[in-house]
Amino acid sequence: VVPDRKRILDVGEDALVTAVITRYGALPEHVLIGPGDDAAVLDIPGQVVASTDTLVEGYDFRRDWSSARDVGIKTAAQNLADIAAMGARPLALLVSLAAPGDLPSRWATELAEGLDDECRRAGAAVVGGDVSQATEIVITGSALGVLSGRPVLRSGARPGDGVALAGTTGPSGAGLALLTAGVATGDDAMLAELVRAHLAPRPPYPAGVAARIAGAHAMIDTSDGLLRDAGRIAASSAVSIDLDPVALTPGDALRHAAAVLHAGHAGMDWVLSGGEDHALLACFPPGTALPPPFRPVGRVLPVDLDHDHDPHTQVLVEGRPWTGVTGWTHFSR
Amino acid sequence: VVPDRKRILDVGEDALVTAVITRYGALPEHVLIGPGDDAAVLDIPGQVVASTDTLVEGYDFRRDWSSARDVGIKTAAQNLADIAAMGARPLALLVSLAAPGDLPSRWATELAEGLDDECRRAGAAVVGGDVSQATEIVITGSALGVLSGRPVLRSGARPGDGVALAGTTGPSGAGLALLTAGVATGDDAMLAELVRAHLAPRPPYPAGVAARIAGAHAMIDTSDGLLRDAGRIAASSAVSIDLDPVALTPGDALRHAAAVLHAGHAGMDWVLSGGEDHALLACFPPGTALPPPFRPVGRVLPVDLDHDHDPHTQVLVEGRPWTGVTGWTHFSR
Repeated sequence: VVPDRKRILDVGEDALVTAVITRYGALPEHVLIGPGDDAAVLDIPGQVVASTDTLVEGYDFRRDWSSARDVGIKTAAQNLADIAAMGARPLALLVSLAAPGDLPSRWATELAEGLDDECRRAGAAVVGGDVSQATEIVITGSALGVLSGRPVLRSGARPGDGVALAGTTGPSGAGLALLTAGVATGDDAMLAELVRAHLAPRPPYPAGVAARIAGAHAMIDTSDGLLRDAGRIAASSAVSIDLDPVALTPGDALRHAAAVLHAGHAGMDWVLSGGEDHALLACFPPGTALPPPFRPVGRVLPVDLDHDHDPHTQVLVEGRPWTGVTGWTHFSR
Repeated sequence: VVPDRKRILDVGEDALVTAVITRYGALPEHVLIGPGDDAAVLDIPGQVVASTDTLVEGYDFRRDWSSARDVGIKTAAQNLADIAAMGARPLALLVSLAAPGDLPSRWATELAEGLDDECRRAGAAVVGGDVSQATEIVITGSALGVLSGRPVLRSGARPGDGVALAGTTGPSGAGLALLTAGVATGDDAMLAELVRAHLAPRPPYPAGVAARIAGAHAMIDTSDGLLRDAGRIAASSAVSIDLDPVALTPGDALRHAAAVLHAGHAGMDWVLSGGEDHALLACFPPGTALPPPFRPVGRVLPVDLDHDHDPHTQVLVEGRPWTGVTGWTHFSR
């Protein structure tokens, strides 16, 4: 089969939208009207949770590193994880693609396949979208979910709570470091898995609802690094968070990658500061039986009055401020 | 007061988000959790209607023509009009801003003011967003609304229906032509109004719900030109649409602009083919008392079997295919 290398400029807007829509599987029951009209119509039996997140070529992905399918998975994962982080169940995704006219239409349809794949893994579906012409590729997802009961906010953590993590932090940052260094993963399955974690993260969505049901006081999706995102809970809740370095000890793959890259931190900087893992970090009342796959990684303390109120200093590692990198930020030089 | 000319790169992501959020007014009752957490939480008493639409600098707006406030109004209008076009009431908007790091932070906060202003006019509110770094400005809105009863789709028009328009088509296209030609509107209120219609459209949102209640069979938001959008109803419904050129006679301002620009069409090309007016075009059963501000502009016919099924030929003007421009398309050279 000869790949379709027609440019989206030549395919035209309406035909492109039709080609993309055919890549989406059958619509779940809660989607009353799917893509193709002015808007989608959904039956959402509960409160509606909504969030939006954007990926920009060159900043958030590179076409020489990521397949279009990877970018689709990452777009869906980033957005749907925000729904899970409220204690809600993801249901739907809207996707806007702005791209140069010379983008192969095959890239757009493979993007759609990745979006669809990750949406289905989360129990959601792509319900609508938009295409526009632009100089660089910018993809914005907007996710919708359903919530029964109270949302789990960033602001509810209380001193005494246990801090727990569903998923792992570090693999995405390590994968990015490997890609940046140009390390060929070859037959090395551990390295390849770290690169996959960066290119196509697969968040533990059901852990979001499970955390809410178990009574989580606060939760966040770790998109910008564990320290930075824990800092957001700490700042919103006016508490300190003390992370346990033993519980966060880098696994074999991270230590192996650190060795390959001659990184002196043995993987710990990736665990604490690497972005885009989309694990769920939650604070539970003391004595809570943690729902799987949550595992304890720290505890919530009163704000340490010896420190100022800069959120970065409200997260400690074994009682001390961490002196390494403190997370990935947009708008950095 | 010295304007804040700090670049968003220097302000930083978290501070920028905080600065933007403060520009939004008080949240309406249906917004349980607004901007600032992983996602917003809404109480939507009915079916949920959702749509997304993107504006790209250089393609959809120019910073030398539009103020940031204008771009905010246009972003909100484009998105919220899609909700109205389903017969639904707009409730909420998510907004993602991708922008170069040297964008003045004042531009972002003024954008937020425009978004907030148009949302409030529609009965909605900005409930969340995202900022990313990019080479050019790309703004994606995602609108949510509430629907009671059946959505008004593009596919429901039937032969015999009357075709009606709420709002006007043409002003935005004329405004764009004036801007492109570099005509200074000066004290000419008619020309200035056309330019305003292009830069900051103000769709007739309540007409969407009114059309549904009056029993509209089909509806669409005129974003890409009357002929092209009527063609989408025609294609989806497998009907022809015959537009009445007398009912669509260009008004004084359009004729004036055509004279100033020495355009031979006396404004009619803008009425039929100009984009971005965000009027609502609907098809009503015969004999329907049209809810204001709808006025009759044509009728629905069976598909003319002498023509092929190219949607563009399914829209006629006074029984004949229109030979002028047929609407604005993305991905055009």
